Amino acid sequence: MDEPINARQYAMPLRVYWEDTDAGGVVFYANYLKFMERCRTEWLRHLGVEQLQLQADTGVVFVVLDVNIRYKKSARLDDLLTVDVSLLEQRAASIVVRQTVRNGDALLAESTVRIGCVEQASWKPCRLPDSVARVLMTV
Amino acid sequence: MDEPINARQYAMPLRVYWEDTDAGGVVFYANYLKFMERCRTEWLRHLGVEQLQLQADTGVVFVVLDVNIRYKKSARLDDLLTVDVSLLEQRAASIVVRQTVRNGDALLAESTVRIGCVEQASWKPCRLPDSVARVLMTV
Amino acid sequence: MDEPINARQYAMPLRVYWEDTDAGGVVFYANYLKFMERCRTEWLRHLGVEQLQLQADTGVVFVVLDVNIRYKKSARLDDLLTVDVSLLEQRAASIVVRQTVRNGDALLAESTVRIGCVEQASWKPCRLPDSVARVLMTV
Amino acid sequence: MDEPINARQYAMPLRVYWEDTDAGGVVFYANYLKFMERCRTEWLRHLGVEQLQLQADTGVVFVVLDVNIRYKKSARLDDLLTVDVSLLEQRAASIVVRQTVRNGDALLAESTVRIGCVEQASWKPCRLPDSVARVLMTV
Repeated sequence: MDEPINARQYAMPLRVYWEDTDAGGVVFYANYLKFMERCRTEWLRHLGVEQLQLQADTGVVFVVLDVNIRYKKSARLDDLLTVDVSLLEQRAASIVVRQTVRNGDALLAESTVRIGCVEQASWKPCRLPDSVARVLMTV
Repeated sequence: MDEPINARQYAMPLRVYWEDTDAGGVVFYANYLKFMERCRTEWLRHLGVEQLQLQADTGVVFVVLDVNIRYKKSARLDDLLTVDVSLLEQRAASIVVRQTVRNGDALLAESTVRIGCVEQASWKPCRLPDSVARVLMTV
Repeated sequence: MDEPINARQYAMPLRVYWEDTDAGGVVFYANYLKFMERCRTEWLRHLGVEQLQLQADTGVVFVVLDVNIRYKKSARLDDLLTVDVSLLEQRAASIVVRQTVRNGDALLAESTVRIGCVEQASWKPCRLPDSVARVLMTV
Repeated sequence: MDEPINARQYAMPLRVYWEDTDAGGVVFYANYLKFMERCRTEWLRHLGVEQLQLQADTGVVFVVLDVNIRYKKSARLDDLLTVDVSLLEQRAASIVVRQTVRNGDALLAESTVRIGCVEQASWKPCRLPDSVARVLMTV
Protein backbone atom coordinates (compact mmCIF):
# COMPACT_ATOMS: atom_id res chain seq x y z
CA MET A 1 0.00 0.00 0.00
CA ASP A 2 2.96 2.20 0.69
CA GLU A 3 4.10 1.74 -2.90
CA PRO A 4 2.84 3.59 -5.95
CA ILE A 5 0.57 1.41 -8.10
CA ASN A 6 1.94 3.24 -11.10
CA ALA A 7 3.92 6.36 -11.64
CA ARG A 8 0.89 8.68 -11.67
CA GLN A 9 -0.59 7.30 -8.46
CA TYR A 10 0.59 7.17 -4.87
CA ALA A 11 -0.97 5.67 -1.74
CA MET A 12 -0.03 5.66 1.93
CA PRO A 13 -1.42 4.17 5.15
CA LEU A 14 -2.76 6.49 7.82
CA ARG A 15 -3.83 5.68 11.38
CA VAL A 16 -6.77 7.50 13.03
CA TYR A 17 -5.84 9.01 16.43
CA TRP A 18 -7.89 10.75 19.15
CA GLU A 19 -6.95 14.17 17.69
CA ASP A 20 -8.72 13.26 14.44
CA THR A 21 -12.08 12.34 15.97
CA ASP A 22 -14.92 14.43 17.33
CA ALA A 23 -17.73 13.99 19.85
CA GLY A 24 -19.81 12.19 17.20
CA GLY A 25 -17.32 9.33 17.59
CA VAL A 26 -15.98 9.67 14.04
CA VAL A 27 -13.26 11.56 12.17
CA PHE A 28 -14.11 15.29 11.96
CA TYR A 29 -14.87 16.27 8.37
CA ALA A 30 -12.16 18.92 8.07
CA ASN A 31 -9.49 16.40 9.05
CA TYR A 32 -9.89 14.48 5.78
CA LEU A 33 -8.31 17.52 4.14
CA LYS A 34 -5.34 17.10 6.47
CA PHE A 35 -5.08 13.44 5.47
CA MET A 36 -5.20 14.36 1.79
CA GLU A 37 -2.52 17.02 2.21
CA ARG A 38 -0.21 14.52 3.94
CA CYS A 39 -0.62 12.18 1.00
CA ARG A 40 0.10 14.89 -1.59
CA THR A 41 3.24 15.86 0.33
CA GLU A 42 4.46 12.25 0.49
CA TRP A 43 3.67 11.83 -3.22
CA LEU A 44 5.79 14.89 -4.04
CA ARG A 45 8.56 13.66 -1.74
CA HIS A 46 8.37 10.27 -3.47
CA LEU A 47 8.86 12.11 -6.79
CA GLY A 48 11.87 13.95 -5.34
CA VAL A 49 10.19 17.26 -4.54
CA GLU A 50 10.78 18.58 -1.00
CA GLN A 51 8.55 21.62 -0.54
CA LEU A 52 10.78 23.56 1.89
CA GLN A 53 13.73 23.03 -0.45
CA LEU A 54 11.60 24.06 -3.45
CA GLN A 55 10.60 27.22 -1.62
CA ALA A 56 14.23 28.04 -0.75
CA ASP A 57 15.34 27.39 -4.35
CA THR A 58 12.49 29.06 -6.27
CA GLY A 59 10.44 31.16 -3.83
CA VAL A 60 7.38 29.21 -4.92
CA VAL A 61 4.79 27.52 -2.69
CA PHE A 62 1.79 25.38 -3.58
CA VAL A 63 -1.69 26.61 -2.71
CA VAL A 64 -5.00 24.78 -2.89
CA LEU A 65 -7.40 26.55 -5.29
CA ASP A 66 -10.47 24.39 -4.85
CA VAL A 67 -11.66 21.15 -3.30
CA ASN A 68 -14.70 19.06 -4.12
CA ILE A 69 -15.09 16.33 -1.53
CA ARG A 70 -17.81 13.73 -0.96
CA TYR A 71 -18.08 11.90 2.36
CA LYS A 72 -19.42 8.34 1.99
CA LYS A 73 -18.70 6.51 5.24
CA SER A 74 -17.17 7.40 8.59
CA ALA A 75 -13.75 6.55 9.97
CA ARG A 76 -13.29 5.82 13.66
CA LEU A 77 -10.52 5.81 16.24
CA ASP A 78 -7.84 3.17 15.62
CA ASP A 79 -8.89 2.63 11.99
CA LEU A 80 -5.97 2.07 9.65
CA LEU A 81 -6.88 3.94 6.47
CA THR A 82 -5.35 4.26 3.02
CA VAL A 83 -5.10 7.67 1.36
CA ASP A 84 -4.19 7.97 -2.29
CA VAL A 85 -3.60 10.61 -4.92
CA SER A 86 -3.57 10.42 -8.71
CA LEU A 87 -2.78 13.13 -11.24
CA LEU A 88 -5.81 14.01 -13.39
CA GLU A 89 -4.60 17.10 -15.21
CA GLN A 90 -1.47 19.21 -15.54
CA ARG A 91 -1.37 22.81 -16.80
CA ALA A 92 1.27 25.51 -16.79
CA ALA A 93 0.18 27.03 -13.50
CA SER A 94 -1.94 24.34 -11.84
CA ILE A 95 -2.63 20.64 -11.48
CA VAL A 96 -5.75 18.68 -10.60
CA VAL A 97 -5.54 15.50 -8.54
CA ARG A 98 -8.10 12.93 -7.45
CA GLN A 99 -7.79 11.59 -3.92
CA THR A 100 -9.58 8.93 -1.93
CA VAL A 101 -9.60 7.78 1.68
CA ARG A 102 -10.42 4.10 2.14
CA ASN A 103 -10.79 1.65 5.00
CA GLY A 104 -9.92 -1.68 3.43
CA ASP A 105 -12.30 -1.95 0.47
CA ALA A 106 -14.71 0.69 1.78
CA LEU A 107 -14.52 4.12 0.17
CA LEU A 108 -14.86 6.73 2.93
CA ALA A 109 -14.23 9.94 1.00
CA GLU A 110 -13.25 11.01 -2.49
CA SER A 111 -12.18 14.41 -3.74
CA THR A 112 -10.77 16.39 -6.59
CA VAL A 113 -8.29 19.05 -5.58
CA ARG A 114 -6.93 21.83 -7.80
CA ILE A 115 -3.54 23.15 -6.78
CA GLY A 116 -1.70 26.20 -8.05
CA CYS A 117 1.57 27.94 -7.33
CA VAL A 118 2.27 31.38 -5.87
CA GLU A 119 5.44 33.40 -5.31
CA GLN A 120 5.72 33.48 -1.55
CA ALA A 121 6.95 37.08 -1.41
CA SER A 122 3.94 38.51 -3.26
CA TRP A 123 1.48 35.61 -2.93
CA LYS A 124 0.85 36.12 -6.69
CA PRO A 125 0.02 33.15 -8.93
CA CYS A 126 2.89 31.80 -11.02
CA ARG A 127 3.81 28.81 -13.20
CA LEU A 128 4.82 25.47 -11.71
CA PRO A 129 8.60 25.47 -11.16
CA ASP A 130 10.31 23.65 -14.05
CA SER A 131 11.68 20.98 -11.75
CA VAL A 132 8.15 20.09 -10.63
CA ALA A 133 6.57 20.32 -14.09
CA ARG A 134 9.24 18.01 -15.52
CA VAL A 135 8.85 15.42 -12.78
CA LEU A 136 5.08 15.32 -13.16
CA MET A 137 5.23 15.14 -16.96
CA THR A 138 7.55 12.17 -16.93
CA VAL A 139 5.50 10.23 -14.42
CA MET B 1 -22.04 41.47 11.46
CA ASP B 2 -23.10 39.35 14.41
CA GLU B 3 -26.72 39.77 13.39
CA PRO B 4 -28.54 37.86 10.67
CA ILE B 5 -29.10 40.01 7.57
CA ASN B 6 -32.35 38.16 7.09
CA ALA B 7 -33.89 35.03 8.49
CA ARG B 8 -32.21 32.70 5.97
CA GLN B 9 -28.75 34.12 6.48
CA TYR B 10 -26.39 34.31 9.43
CA ALA B 11 -22.94 35.86 9.83
CA MET B 12 -20.38 35.92 12.61
CA PRO B 13 -16.94 37.45 13.20
CA LEU B 14 -13.94 35.17 13.56
CA ARG B 15 -10.39 36.01 14.60
CA VAL B 16 -7.39 34.20 13.09
CA TYR B 17 -5.05 32.75 15.74
CA TRP B 18 -1.64 31.04 15.55
CA GLU B 19 -3.33 27.61 15.60
CA ASP B 20 -5.09 28.45 12.31
CA THR B 21 -1.98 29.37 10.33
CA ASP B 22 0.73 27.26 8.73
CA ALA B 23 4.37 27.71 7.75
CA GLY B 24 3.27 29.44 4.53
CA GLY B 25 2.22 32.35 6.77
CA VAL B 26 -1.49 31.96 5.96
CA VAL B 27 -4.53 30.06 7.25
CA PHE B 28 -4.19 26.33 6.48
CA TYR B 29 -6.77 25.28 3.89
CA ALA B 30 -8.50 22.65 6.04
CA ASN B 31 -9.15 25.22 8.77
CA TYR B 32 -11.68 27.08 6.61
CA LEU B 33 -13.90 24.02 7.08
CA LYS B 34 -13.58 24.52 10.85
CA PHE B 35 -14.58 28.17 10.45
CA MET B 36 -17.60 27.18 8.35
CA GLU B 37 -18.68 24.55 10.89
CA ARG B 38 -18.53 27.11 13.71
CA CYS B 39 -20.78 29.39 11.72
CA ARG B 40 -23.32 26.64 10.95
CA THR B 41 -23.41 25.73 14.64
CA GLU B 42 -23.99 29.35 15.70
CA TRP B 43 -26.67 29.71 13.00
CA LEU B 44 -28.49 26.67 14.36
CA ARG B 45 -28.09 27.96 17.92
CA HIS B 46 -29.46 31.32 16.77
CA LEU B 47 -32.48 29.42 15.39
CA GLY B 48 -32.93 27.63 18.72
CA VAL B 49 -31.29 24.32 17.81
CA GLU B 50 -28.63 23.07 20.26
CA GLN B 51 -27.00 20.02 18.70
CA LEU B 52 -26.17 18.12 21.92
CA GLN B 53 -29.74 18.64 23.11
CA LEU B 54 -31.10 17.56 19.72
CA GLN B 55 -28.99 14.42 19.91
CA ALA B 56 -30.23 13.64 23.43
CA ASP B 57 -33.85 14.24 22.37
CA THR B 58 -33.89 12.52 18.98
CA GLY B 59 -30.69 10.43 18.64
CA VAL B 60 -29.96 12.34 15.45
CA VAL B 61 -26.70 14.05 14.48
CA PHE B 62 -25.82 16.14 11.43
CA VAL B 63 -23.17 14.88 9.02
CA VAL B 64 -21.52 16.68 6.13
CA LEU B 65 -22.20 14.86 2.84
CA ASP B 66 -20.17 16.99 0.47
CA VAL B 67 -18.25 20.25 0.27
CA ASN B 68 -17.28 22.30 -2.76
CA ILE B 69 -14.92 25.06 -1.71
CA ARG B 70 -12.97 27.64 -3.71
CA TYR B 71 -10.07 29.53 -2.15
CA LYS B 72 -9.69 33.07 -3.53
CA LYS B 73 -7.38 34.96 -1.18
CA SER B 74 -5.41 34.14 1.95
CA ALA B 75 -6.14 35.04 5.55
CA ARG B 76 -3.30 35.85 7.95
CA LEU B 77 -2.65 35.90 11.67
CA ASP B 78 -4.66 38.57 13.53
CA ASP B 79 -7.14 39.04 10.65
CA LEU B 80 -10.71 39.58 11.81
CA LEU B 81 -12.86 37.65 9.33
CA THR B 82 -16.57 37.29 8.74
CA VAL B 83 -18.07 33.87 8.09
CA ASP B 84 -21.61 33.51 6.86
CA VAL B 85 -24.13 30.84 5.96
CA SER B 86 -27.31 30.96 3.90
CA LEU B 87 -29.82 28.22 3.22
CA LEU B 88 -29.96 27.27 -0.48
CA GLU B 89 -32.13 24.18 -0.42
CA GLN B 90 -34.10 22.09 2.07
CA ARG B 91 -35.15 18.48 1.50
CA ALA B 92 -36.58 15.79 3.77
CA ALA B 93 -33.22 14.32 4.68
CA SER B 94 -30.70 17.02 3.78
CA ILE B 95 -30.04 20.71 3.34
CA VAL B 96 -27.61 22.66 1.18
CA VAL B 97 -26.02 25.87 2.43
CA ARG B 98 -23.74 28.43 0.84
CA GLN B 99 -20.97 29.83 3.02
CA THR B 100 -18.35 32.51 2.57
CA VAL B 101 -15.33 33.72 4.50
CA ARG B 102 -14.53 37.40 4.01
CA ASN B 103 -11.95 39.89 5.24
CA GLY B 104 -13.77 43.20 5.04
CA ASP B 105 -14.96 43.39 1.42
CA ALA B 106 -12.51 40.77 0.17
CA LEU B 107 -13.93 37.31 -0.51
CA LEU B 108 -11.42 34.74 0.77
CA ALA B 109 -13.34 31.50 0.29
CA GLU B 110 -16.78 30.38 -0.78
CA SER B 111 -18.38 26.97 -0.50
CA THR B 112 -21.53 24.97 -0.88
CA VAL B 113 -22.02 22.35 1.81
CA ARG B 114 -24.60 19.53 1.78
CA ILE B 115 -25.58 18.27 5.20
CA GLY B 116 -27.63 15.22 6.09
CA CYS B 117 -28.81 13.52 9.24
CA VAL B 118 -27.93 10.11 10.69
CA GLU B 119 -29.17 8.13 13.68
CA GLN B 120 -26.18 8.12 15.98
CA ALA B 121 -26.71 4.53 17.14
CA SER B 122 -26.60 3.05 13.63
CA TRP B 123 -25.00 5.93 11.71
CA LYS B 124 -27.79 5.34 9.13
CA PRO B 125 -29.25 8.28 7.16
CA CYS B 126 -32.58 9.61 8.40
CA ARG B 127 -34.93 12.58 7.93
CA LEU B 128 -34.26 15.94 9.54
CA PRO B 129 -35.87 15.99 13.00
CA ASP B 130 -39.26 17.78 12.81
CA SER B 131 -38.09 20.50 15.18
CA VAL B 132 -35.24 21.37 12.82
CA ALA B 133 -37.27 21.06 9.61
CA ARG B 134 -39.94 23.39 11.01
CA VAL B 135 -37.48 26.01 12.16
CA LEU B 136 -35.73 26.06 8.78
CA MET B 137 -38.99 26.19 6.84
CA THR B 138 -40.26 29.17 8.75
CA VAL B 139 -37.05 31.12 8.39
CA MET C 1 -15.88 38.56 31.34
CA ASP C 2 -14.50 40.19 28.24
CA GLU C 3 -13.05 42.92 30.40
CA PRO C 4 -9.86 42.73 32.45
CA ILE C 5 -10.58 42.36 36.17
CA ASN C 6 -7.47 44.37 36.80
CA ALA C 7 -4.59 45.51 34.70
CA ARG C 8 -2.53 42.33 35.19
CA GLN C 9 -5.38 39.98 34.34
CA TYR C 10 -7.45 39.36 31.23
CA ALA C 11 -10.36 37.00 30.54
CA MET C 12 -12.35 36.09 27.44
CA PRO C 13 -15.29 33.82 26.60
CA LEU C 14 -14.73 30.81 24.38
CA ARG C 15 -17.29 28.48 22.82
CA VAL C 16 -16.56 24.75 22.37
CA TYR C 17 -17.13 23.55 18.78
CA TRP C 18 -17.06 20.10 17.16
CA GLU C 19 -13.44 20.63 16.08
CA ASP C 20 -12.40 20.90 19.76
CA THR C 21 -13.92 17.60 20.90
CA ASP C 22 -12.82 14.00 20.50
CA ALA C 23 -14.46 10.57 20.43
CA GLY C 24 -14.49 10.53 24.25
CA GLY C 25 -17.19 13.23 23.96
CA VAL C 26 -15.03 15.92 25.60
CA VAL C 27 -12.52 18.57 24.57
CA PHE C 28 -9.23 16.94 23.45
CA TYR C 29 -6.46 17.70 25.97
CA ALA C 30 -4.13 19.43 23.47
CA ASN C 31 -6.85 21.90 22.53
CA TYR C 32 -6.71 23.60 25.94
CA LEU C 33 -3.30 24.86 24.85
CA LYS C 34 -5.00 26.42 21.81
CA PHE C 35 -7.56 28.08 24.06
CA MET C 36 -4.80 29.45 26.29
CA GLU C 37 -2.85 30.80 23.32
CA ARG C 38 -5.95 32.61 22.02
CA CYS C 39 -6.34 34.27 25.41
CA ARG C 40 -2.67 35.34 25.59
CA THR C 41 -2.96 36.83 22.11
CA GLU C 42 -6.12 38.77 23.00
CA TRP C 43 -4.48 39.95 26.24
CA LEU C 44 -1.51 41.29 24.28
CA ARG C 45 -3.85 42.89 21.74
CA HIS C 46 -5.79 44.45 24.63
CA LEU C 47 -2.46 45.90 25.85
CA GLY C 48 -1.75 47.29 22.38
CA VAL C 49 0.65 44.59 21.17
CA GLU C 50 -0.14 43.08 17.75
CA GLN C 51 2.23 40.18 17.21
CA LEU C 52 2.52 40.42 13.40
CA GLN C 53 3.26 44.13 13.71
CA LEU C 54 5.77 43.46 16.48
CA GLN C 55 7.47 40.91 14.28
CA ALA C 56 7.60 43.34 11.34
CA ASP C 57 8.97 46.12 13.58
CA THR C 58 11.47 44.17 15.69
CA GLY C 59 12.00 40.74 14.08
CA VAL C 60 11.00 39.19 17.40
CA VAL C 61 8.44 36.43 18.00
CA PHE C 62 7.20 34.87 21.23
CA VAL C 63 7.85 31.19 21.90
CA VAL C 64 6.49 28.99 24.65
CA LEU C 65 9.32 27.60 26.80
CA ASP C 66 7.35 25.39 29.14
CA VAL C 67 3.82 24.54 30.18
CA ASN C 68 2.57 22.90 33.37
CA ILE C 69 -1.11 22.09 33.01
CA ARG C 70 -3.54 20.23 35.28
CA TYR C 71 -6.86 18.97 33.93
CA LYS C 72 -9.62 18.96 36.56
CA LYS C 73 -12.93 18.56 34.73
CA SER C 74 -14.02 18.06 31.14
CA ALA C 75 -15.55 20.53 28.72
CA ARG C 76 -18.16 19.40 26.21
CA LEU C 77 -19.61 20.53 22.91
CA ASP C 78 -21.58 23.80 23.14
CA ASP C 79 -20.05 24.75 26.52
CA LEU C 80 -19.35 28.45 26.86
CA LEU C 81 -16.05 28.65 28.73
CA THR C 82 -13.97 31.47 30.18
CA VAL C 83 -10.22 31.53 29.65
CA ASP C 84 -8.02 33.92 31.59
CA VAL C 85 -4.40 34.92 31.91
CA SER C 86 -2.53 36.74 34.66
CA LEU C 87 1.08 37.85 34.75
CA LEU C 88 3.07 36.07 37.48
CA GLU C 89 6.60 37.11 36.69
CA GLN C 90 8.49 39.34 34.26
CA ARG C 91 12.19 39.01 33.44
CA ALA C 92 14.41 40.53 30.77
CA ALA C 93 13.93 37.67 28.32
CA SER C 94 10.83 35.84 29.53
CA ILE C 95 7.53 36.09 31.36
CA VAL C 96 5.48 33.57 33.32
CA VAL C 97 1.70 33.64 33.23
CA ARG C 98 -0.98 31.66 35.04
CA GLN C 99 -4.00 30.65 32.98
CA THR C 100 -7.27 28.92 33.78
CA VAL C 101 -10.16 27.54 31.77
CA ARG C 102 -13.50 27.64 33.59
CA ASN C 103 -17.10 26.66 32.91
CA GLY C 104 -19.09 29.01 35.12
CA ASP C 105 -17.65 28.46 38.59
CA ALA C 106 -16.09 25.10 37.74
CA LEU C 107 -12.33 25.08 37.19
CA LEU C 108 -11.59 22.80 34.21
CA ALA C 109 -7.87 23.36 33.73
CA GLU C 110 -5.12 25.52 35.17
CA SER C 111 -1.62 26.09 33.90
CA THR C 112 1.55 28.08 34.25
CA VAL C 113 3.18 28.99 30.97
CA ARG C 114 6.68 30.42 30.51
CA ILE C 115 7.16 32.46 27.35
CA GLY C 116 10.38 33.78 25.86
CA CYS C 117 11.38 35.74 22.79
CA VAL C 118 13.46 34.73 19.79
CA GLU C 119 14.80 36.59 16.78
CA GLN C 120 12.84 35.07 13.92
CA ALA C 121 15.78 35.07 11.49
CA SER C 122 18.06 33.01 13.74
CA TRP C 123 15.48 31.57 16.19
CA LYS C 124 17.96 32.65 18.93
CA PRO C 125 16.66 33.78 22.36
CA CYS C 126 16.57 37.54 22.91
CA ARG C 127 15.19 40.12 25.34
CA LEU C 128 11.55 41.19 25.29
CA PRO C 129 11.15 44.12 22.89
CA ASP C 130 11.14 47.40 24.84
CA SER C 131 7.61 48.20 23.73
CA VAL C 132 6.34 44.95 25.25
CA ALA C 133 8.44 45.15 28.42
CA ARG C 134 7.19 48.69 29.08
CA VAL C 135 3.55 47.79 28.56
CA LEU C 136 3.76 44.80 30.89
CA MET C 137 5.64 46.74 33.58
CA THR C 138 3.04 49.47 33.71
CA VAL C 139 0.11 47.09 33.91
CA MET D 1 13.47 3.50 16.00
CA ASP D 2 10.15 1.83 15.45
CA GLU D 3 11.14 -0.87 17.90
CA PRO D 4 10.98 -0.67 21.69
CA ILE D 5 14.45 -0.23 23.20
CA ASN D 6 13.22 -2.25 26.14
CA ALA D 7 9.88 -3.40 27.39
CA ARG D 8 9.13 -0.21 29.33
CA GLN D 9 9.96 2.10 26.44
CA TYR D 10 8.49 2.65 23.01
CA ALA D 11 9.49 4.96 20.17
CA MET D 12 7.98 5.82 16.79
CA PRO D 13 8.88 8.03 13.84
CA LEU D 14 6.68 11.02 13.02
CA ARG D 15 6.75 13.29 9.99
CA VAL D 16 5.94 17.03 10.29
CA TYR D 17 3.24 18.16 7.82
CA TRP D 18 1.82 21.58 6.94
CA GLU D 19 -1.07 21.07 9.40
CA ASP D 20 1.44 20.87 12.28
CA THR D 21 3.21 24.16 11.58
CA ASP D 22 2.22 27.77 12.23
CA ALA D 23 3.04 31.17 10.76
CA GLY D 24 6.25 31.27 12.82
CA GLY D 25 7.50 28.56 10.45
CA VAL D 26 7.72 25.92 13.18
CA VAL D 27 5.50 23.27 14.77
CA PHE D 28 2.76 24.91 16.89
CA TYR D 29 3.34 24.20 20.59
CA ALA D 30 0.00 22.46 21.21
CA ASN D 31 0.72 19.96 18.46
CA TYR D 32 3.53 18.32 20.46
CA LEU D 33 0.76 17.05 22.74
CA LYS D 34 -0.86 15.45 19.68
CA PHE D 35 2.46 13.80 18.80
CA MET D 36 2.82 12.49 22.35
CA GLU D 37 -0.72 11.11 22.38
CA ARG D 38 -0.09 9.25 19.11
CA CYS D 39 2.97 7.65 20.67
CA ARG D 40 1.13 6.60 23.86
CA THR D 41 -1.61 5.05 21.71
CA GLU D 42 0.89 3.10 19.60
CA TRP D 43 2.71 2.00 22.77
CA LEU D 44 -0.55 0.64 24.20
CA ARG D 45 -1.36 -1.02 20.88
CA HIS D 46 2.13 -2.54 20.86
CA LEU D 47 1.34 -3.95 24.33
CA GLY D 48 -1.95 -5.39 23.04
CA VAL D 49 -4.30 -2.69 24.35
CA GLU D 50 -6.73 -1.26 21.78
CA GLN D 51 -8.52 1.67 23.42
CA LEU D 52 -11.86 1.36 21.58
CA GLN D 53 -11.96 -2.34 22.43
CA LEU D 54 -11.04 -1.60 26.05
CA GLN D 55 -13.85 0.94 26.22
CA ALA D 56 -16.37 -1.55 24.75
CA ASP D 57 -15.21 -4.27 27.18
CA THR D 58 -14.84 -2.26 30.38
CA GLY D 59 -16.49 1.15 29.91
CA VAL D 60 -13.18 2.74 30.86
CA VAL D 61 -11.31 5.49 29.00
CA PHE D 62 -7.94 7.09 29.71
CA VAL D 63 -7.77 10.78 30.58
CA VAL D 64 -4.74 13.03 30.90
CA LEU D 65 -4.50 14.47 34.44
CA ASP D 66 -1.49 16.71 34.02
CA VAL D 67 1.31 17.54 31.62
CA ASN D 68 4.64 19.22 32.29
CA ILE D 69 6.34 19.99 29.00
CA ARG D 70 9.55 21.86 28.18
CA TYR D 71 10.22 23.08 24.65
CA LYS D 72 13.95 23.10 23.78
CA LYS D 73 14.24 23.46 20.00
CA SER D 74 11.81 23.88 17.11
CA ALA D 75 10.66 21.36 14.55
CA ARG D 76 9.97 22.42 10.97
CA LEU D 77 8.02 21.23 7.96
CA ASP D 78 9.33 17.94 6.50
CA ASP D 79 11.33 17.06 9.64
CA LEU D 80 11.26 13.37 10.48
CA LEU D 81 11.02 13.24 14.27
CA THR D 82 11.13 10.46 16.85
CA VAL D 83 8.62 10.43 19.70
CA ASP D 84 9.06 8.09 22.63
CA VAL D 85 7.35 7.13 25.86
CA SER D 86 8.64 5.35 28.96
CA LEU D 87 6.77 4.29 32.06
CA LEU D 88 7.95 6.13 35.18
CA GLU D 89 5.36 5.11 37.73
CA GLN D 90 2.31 2.85 38.00
CA ARG D 91 -0.41 3.19 40.65
CA ALA D 92 -3.85 1.65 41.06
CA ALA D 93 -5.66 4.46 39.28
CA SER D 94 -2.96 6.30 37.31
CA ILE D 95 0.37 6.06 35.56
CA VAL D 96 3.11 8.58 34.88
CA VAL D 97 5.11 8.48 31.66
CA ARG D 98 8.06 10.47 30.37
CA GLN D 99 7.99 11.41 26.70
CA THR D 100 10.43 13.12 24.38
CA VAL D 101 10.32 14.43 20.84
CA ARG D 102 13.68 14.35 19.05
CA ASN D 103 15.07 15.29 15.65
CA GLY D 104 18.03 12.94 15.23
CA ASP D 105 20.14 13.58 18.33
CA ALA D 106 18.55 16.94 19.11
CA LEU D 107 16.02 16.98 21.96
CA LEU D 108 13.10 19.21 20.90
CA ALA D 109 10.66 18.68 23.77
CA GLU D 110 10.38 16.56 26.88
CA SER D 111 7.40 16.00 29.13
CA THR D 112 6.00 14.05 32.01
CA VAL D 113 2.35 13.10 31.60
CA ARG D 114 0.08 11.69 34.30
CA ILE D 115 -2.81 9.61 32.99
CA GLY D 116 -5.81 8.29 34.89
CA CYS D 117 -8.92 6.28 34.06
CA VAL D 118 -12.57 7.27 34.16
CA GLU D 119 -15.80 5.36 33.64
CA GLN D 120 -17.14 6.82 30.42
CA ALA D 121 -20.77 6.80 31.55
CA SER D 122 -20.15 8.94 34.65
CA TRP D 123 -16.71 10.37 33.81
CA LYS D 124 -15.77 9.37 37.40
CA PRO D 125 -12.19 8.28 38.21
CA CYS D 126 -11.64 4.54 38.50
CA ARG D 127 -8.82 1.99 38.73
CA LEU D 128 -6.87 0.88 35.67
CA PRO D 129 -8.63 -2.09 34.08
CA ASP D 130 -6.94 -5.33 35.20
CA SER D 131 -5.94 -6.18 31.64
CA VAL D 132 -4.01 -2.91 31.35
CA ALA D 133 -2.50 -3.04 34.85
CA ARG D 134 -1.21 -6.58 34.21
CA VAL D 135 0.32 -5.72 30.87
CA LEU D 136 2.13 -2.69 32.28
CA MET D 137 3.37 -4.57 35.32
CA THR D 138 4.89 -7.33 33.25
CA VAL D 139 6.65 -4.98 30.88
